[in-house]
This record gives sequence, structure tokens and C-alpha cells, in this order.
Amino acid sequence: MSTRLSTYYIPTKKDLSKDVVLTSHQLMLKAGLIKQVSSGLYAWLPLGMRVLHKVSNIIRNELAKINCHEVILPTMQPQELWDQSGRGSYCGKETLKVQDRHGNSLIYGPTAEEVMTFIAGSDIKSYKNLPLSLHNIQWKFRDEIRPRFGVMRAREFLMMDAYSFDETEQKAEEAYSRHYEAYLKIFARMGLVAIPMKADTGEIGGDLSHEFLVLAQSGESEVIYEKTLEQVMNKIQKGEQVENLRSEISKHYAVTEEKFVEAEAPKTELVKTRGIEVGHIFYFGQKYSVPFNVQFQNKEGKLDYAYMGSYGIGVGRLIAAFIEANSDDKGIIWNKEISPFNVMLINVNPKDEAVTQKCDEIYNRLSQKFEVLYDDEDLSFGQKLSRAEMLGIRGIMLVSKKTLEQDCVEVRSRASGEVEMVKIAAL
Amino acid sequence: MSTRLSTYYIPTKKDLSKDVVLTSHQLMLKAGLIKQVSSGLYAWLPLGMRVLHKVSNIIRNELAKINCHEVILPTMQPQELWDQSGRGSYCGKETLKVQDRHGNSLIYGPTAEEVMTFIAGSDIKSYKNLPLSLHNIQWKFRDEIRPRFGVMRAREFLMMDAYSFDETEQKAEEAYSRHYEAYLKIFARMGLVAIPMKADTGEIGGDLSHEFLVLAQSGESEVIYEKTLEQVMNKIQKGEQVENLRSEISKHYAVTEEKFVEAEAPKTELVKTRGIEVGHIFYFGQKYSVPFNVQFQNKEGKLDYAYMGSYGIGVGRLIAAFIEANSDDKGIIWNKEISPFNVMLINVNPKDEAVTQKCDEIYNRLSQKFEVLYDDEDLSFGQKLSRAEMLGIRGIMLVSKKTLEQDCVEVRSRASGEVEMVKIAAL
Repeated sequence: MSTRLSTYYIPTKKDLSKDVVLTSHQLMLKAGLIKQVSSGLYAWLPLGMRVLHKVSNIIRNELAKINCHEVILPTMQPQELWDQSGRGSYCGKETLKVQDRHGNSLIYGPTAEEVMTFIAGSDIKSYKNLPLSLHNIQWKFRDEIRPRFGVMRAREFLMMDAYSFDETEQKAEEAYSRHYEAYLKIFARMGLVAIPMKADTGEIGGDLSHEFLVLAQSGESEVIYEKTLEQVMNKIQKGEQVENLRSEISKHYAVTEEKFVEAEAPKTELVKTRGIEVGHIFYFGQKYSVPFNVQFQNKEGKLDYAYMGSYGIGVGRLIAAFIEANSDDKGIIWNKEISPFNVMLINVNPKDEAVTQKCDEIYNRLSQKFEVLYDDEDLSFGQKLSRAEMLGIRGIMLVSKKTLEQDCVEVRSRASGEVEMVKIAAL
Repeated sequence: MSTRLSTYYIPTKKDLSKDVVLTSHQLMLKAGLIKQVSSGLYAWLPLGMRVLHKVSNIIRNELAKINCHEVILPTMQPQELWDQSGRGSYCGKETLKVQDRHGNSLIYGPTAEEVMTFIAGSDIKSYKNLPLSLHNIQWKFRDEIRPRFGVMRAREFLMMDAYSFDETEQKAEEAYSRHYEAYLKIFARMGLVAIPMKADTGEIGGDLSHEFLVLAQSGESEVIYEKTLEQVMNKIQKGEQVENLRSEISKHYAVTEEKFVEAEAPKTELVKTRGIEVGHIFYFGQKYSVPFNVQFQNKEGKLDYAYMGSYGIGVGRLIAAFIEANSDDKGIIWNKEISPFNVMLINVNPKDEAVTQKCDEIYNRLSQKFEVLYDDEDLSFGQKLSRAEMLGIRGIMLVSKKTLEQDCVEVRSRASGEVEMVKIAAL
């Protein structure tokens, strides 16, 4: 949907607190994408909201292609499910726990292995019900001791978490690979390189796990990978088809710091750098299906427990990581698929009636095909252009007395900086 | 997006607990739209999720038309904001309150007057920043003592809450009317009649308030309205333009039970019935803008506090109310705009290779234009048809050996029951 800036709400900001050190955090506040409610709690404002929807929709879409369907689980989970899995004791200080009015303990879900196994598990009676894969784009809470970096390490954050159920270990690993590949497609659609690295499984459990990291000096994690990996990542980025993607990538050493063992590392050239974790996937077999009794009849007619994996992407964090990787000194540079609007149309001479009338016409026409943010406000050209560049919408279209003299609009690419005069009739 | 039923997840249910008494609750469980996690906590499953998205999108779309823009606020709110508004004491047993690890109180928001006033208020310096209207489709929590009726009275529920800020009382009332009319459009697009009735303002405050009620014998609220009102409601339903809609409707007496005073009621024919509250709107002037110091310079150059209203729609409850009003003994009957899929394509003879091949072709072709749920499972015709009718997707399309002999598919309207043979070439 298109909108006029004069009726929209983009509270851009100039002066930031000194605590705001990360580029993405600075730009998200400056561009009015988010606003802090309290420590680690953020409101996403209209422009940020649009990006949140677009990224969520890319995730939905790529997951639907691998038959991973969307559900939504409640944010509040009964503690008893956590006791059933044996993870109750994991509920430490980072877990928001509350007694309801009847004295039952509820946990604000930091992840949902238990609830999803409980919900879907009871429908799995036979191998015919498998494979099953479901995802849940929902708010999560982790009571970080020191929330910082804006939505990069917020306490309440939007996370996509998916869960797969399969009939054998091998099929479960195939599901793992499907999710792994879907992740790479999601990131590639956003124009983002996120390298899968072998990682610790932590409290989720299991023995197979990958983190997906966007390389950035500001990243919290240290990572080590074989230089040769970059060739494969480049192919993915270009949209080239790579057969057996996971096993191709796995030929190249890539680990997070915790997994790094000098003696195990190859002798080829290694890159040591930092990265931002945007996704994490786990294979943990029957860890949850046993306590939740997700027992089914397999093809051999025997009873077995479902083999499971789980898969997470921090949606807000992904957007922050994107900005870390895609900005310049003027501001954000959105990618085509996640730009909050397609076009930012600027009326350069808003006091000129003829220009305004023409600009209104162009706005109405463009809006039928594109999402247009129409800067109809009464500000100087400099202010308008620098705001547009800061907001980072892909295409900036200027309409002024001058351009109209040539029956043209001026189109600027935010990414390349290229400027082009385009005939209005050709728009 | 289209999908094959064999790879989808619709856990239909036959046997329900005796506690499940409400039609909508029964049908939502039977059709696999929702599943209970715990008392008053529900998971929305893939089919339900699609309806949740569609209804949310209608709401977004109609609100965007009145320049009410979407933000999303955190579910957890600092208690100190509630103390600032003076509503801290309202936080009774229905409020989920928790201390975070630093000892600060957080409230799981049942509504967000405080947070929205805090967030948007600081950007309102001048009448030029007004009007401003923002909405927030987010999960809310009310710790009901006796959660029941499924998502109709759940503890955690999805609610759209909007907030308007204006420069004068009169403009604020105009904003109130715009929201009032947008609500009627939202309900009408879903094919639902929801009558606005004068209502109590309760703990939100203010002196002007309307509840929107879908008439249903199962409704929790008793309502009284003038018979003549039905004519106006019919016009809205037919999509006829009614000028000054709010004042037109207000000419007819319509109140909730708490507002009913025998002596004030008109002497014309009254209807006493029951209804389900699906929306509630409030005008409360400066109740929140004063404590949050939302002070701005008005057109006269004087300082004043913003005039505010708030507007809520229970999204899950609205879906349940829709089902209460739109079902028969076979199951749900979705409206065009919120049907989870456009077409349910049924392969009647899944063991017949020729039929299956043709059906696959039709599926692929239809999927390019419609959202198709393709029943490719190996069940009897009777089972398939009764499941399709229960799920309530608008158009049911049958492909069988018989229909193919005539190069046809059989199209059944779920709503009217009409059956039509359609040439495959004409699809």
C-alpha cells in the first residue's frame, strides 16, 4: 500500500544517546524504524513494521516450498511441559516465569520444542503422518542480563522457529538439509550472505547443529572458515543451482569459536573473522519425542519415536544484521525484496501548484503498481533528499519544476547512486 | 499458496470433550483450526492460521485507508507506565505481572493505551504532527478466572488495538467516527453484521464508547435495539453508501444491557437479543495525554494536550463469532474474503492413474491463479466430501472418472449447495 508522508509516521531522529554504538542500532533509530519502550523492549514503527512483514513473508514463502507450514503457538507456555522434557531446570534467570491466578507456572517461551511436540505429537500415529514440519513466527522472551544493540539483542524479539518430525534418522537428516537449504535461499533473497558453521547445540540438545552467520566486524561471535568456502557462497548468492548444497558446503571447514580445535582444522588458508548469528538449526533425534510419547508405527510395523529437529531465525536480528551489511554514511540501503516501499517519490517544489498537481498524478498512477512513499511535505530539497537516502528506499524519484520542463522525473538508485531522467509517459 | 493435503497438516477431530459446548468452539476443533495447549491457551494450526492472516489483512487494509498505520508493540510492558497513567491499581488478578531479573515489574499487556501514548506522544510537538492514528495487531493476555468457549474467551488472544491523537475534541470525535466506519467496513467485508451499541467505558475511561456486536443466541452480552436499525444495517451489508454513517446509525436506539434504562428507551419496537462483542471503541480525551505530557502547540499557538481515542478488535474472537453466524450441520461456511483457500480440489479416484494425472494437471493450472487445497489422499468419496464440507472452503471441485468422461469437473458451492458441471477447458 502506498502512502503520503504527511499522513504517515516516520519519526526520524538526529541525536542519539552515546550508548547507541552499533551502526544498525543507530540507523534503525534514526530512520524511525523502531523505538525503545524500556530496556530490551522495542516498538516497531510503521516503516520497520513493513520490513518485518516482508522478511517474515520471505521466510514463510521459502518454508512453504519445503512443506513447512505455519502455525502460531501461544507466547505463554505451561511450565509442566518443560518439566516433562526435563528442561524445566534450564529455566534460569533468562526465563520469564510467572504464576497465573490459579497458581500454575507459565513460562514466556524462549523457544517451543515442548509445545510443538505436545501439539503435533498427538497426531502422529503412523509413518503415513510423516514427514511433518511446522513453523511459528512468534514473539519470544529472553531476560538478557544486559540487553543491548537495539533489536540485535533485545529481550522480547520476533523469532521464526520450525520443527520437523520424521520416521527415521536418515529422513530426519534430509529434513535438516531441506531447512538448511531453505535458510540459504531466504538469506540470498535478501541479498545477504550467511555462512552455515558447525556449532554447539547448547540447551536444545542433540549432536548436529549449524549456526548461520552474517559476517560483520561488529558480530558477537568469532568464526573460522576455509577461504575456499567463499566460492560456494558466491554461487548461492548469484542464484546458481548447487546440487547437494549442504554436503557441498560441508566440504569446507567452517566453525564457530566454541567448535574450533586447532588440531582438527585443515592446513589450507583459514579466515578468522566475526559474525552475527541470524539462524540456528538443530537435529536432536528423539530427545523430545520420547518424553512426549510421540510414538508411531513405522513402515516395518514396529513402534518408534519420531526423529526431530528444530530451526530458528531471529527476524528482528536478521533485519539488524542486514543493515550492518548494507549501509553507507548516508544511511540504509534496502534490498529490493525487503525495501519498505518500492519507490520514494519526492515533490521537490511542494509550494508550486503545477508541480504538486503533476506529482499527485504521478503518485496516483504509480500507486496502482508499486508501493510508493510520497514525500509531499514542505521541506527543503536538501532535507528531503538526505532523509530519503537515510531511509534507504530502493528507488528515489524526484519531481521538480526543472524535471517537468522536460516532461521528466529524475530517478536515482539508492544503491548505485545512478541518476536517470525518465519521461513521465514512460513511467 | 496452494498445497496438497497429503503434505499439509489439518488434524480434524471427531470426538470432543463434553465441555466443548459452543458451536464455533466445536467446529474450530473439528476442522483442525486450533488446538488447546492449556487452559485458555491455544495454538492456531495451518488452516486457522490462514484465516487469522486473512482477517488481519482486511483489518490492516481498511485501517490503512483511514491513515491508521501499523506498528507492533512489545507484549511485555513496564509497570511504571501503568503507574504513570494511574491505571496501575487496575492491574488486578486478570493481569499477568512478573518481576524481571533486575526486579522491575513487567505486565503482559491486556491493552496498550500507556505504551502507545508513551511511544507516539514524544513525537507530537505541534498540530502539524496531527492527526496521528496507529494500530498494533499483537497478542494480549487476560488471566480469565474461567477461560472457555475456545478462542472466544481465551487467556492469550490476538487483538488489534488502535489509538488516535488529535488536536481538538471535535477532530478527535471525527477520528472516532472514521474508526467506527472502518469497523463496519471490516465486518461487512467478512459478510458479518456487527451492530454498534452504546456501551460502558469501563477501566479504559472516557464517556463515549461503542461495542460492536454480532447477534447470536450464544452471545455473552444482552443487547437492546430499535427494530428500525435493521434497515440501515442491511444497507451497509449490501455495500450501499450511507452518508454520515455514524450519525445515521445513532438515530436508532441500540445499547448493551448495562446502558439500558427503561425510561430512556424509545416507545418504538425494540429487539432484545444476545450478541458477541467483536469490537470496542472509546473516546477518552486527555485522560492519557495529560499524565504522559503529550503537549503540543495548537493552531492558535497555545499549548494543549492531545485528544485521544482507542479502538479494539479481537481477531480470534471475530473468527469464532463469524463461525457462530456462518455454519450448518455439515460444518463451517467461509466467506469469500476469509476462506482459508479459494478452492478445495478433490481427487475422487486417487487410485486411478488417469484421474490422478488429470487432477494433478488441474491442480497445477489452478494454483497459478488461486489458492488451492488439493485433497490427494486415499479416502472414500464420502469421507472426502464430508471433510471438505466441514472445512467450509467456498468452492469444492470434484474430479472423478465420471466427470472426466465428460471432460468436466463438478463444482459445488459450499454456501448454496449448487452443483455445476464445468468443462476443464473453461476453468
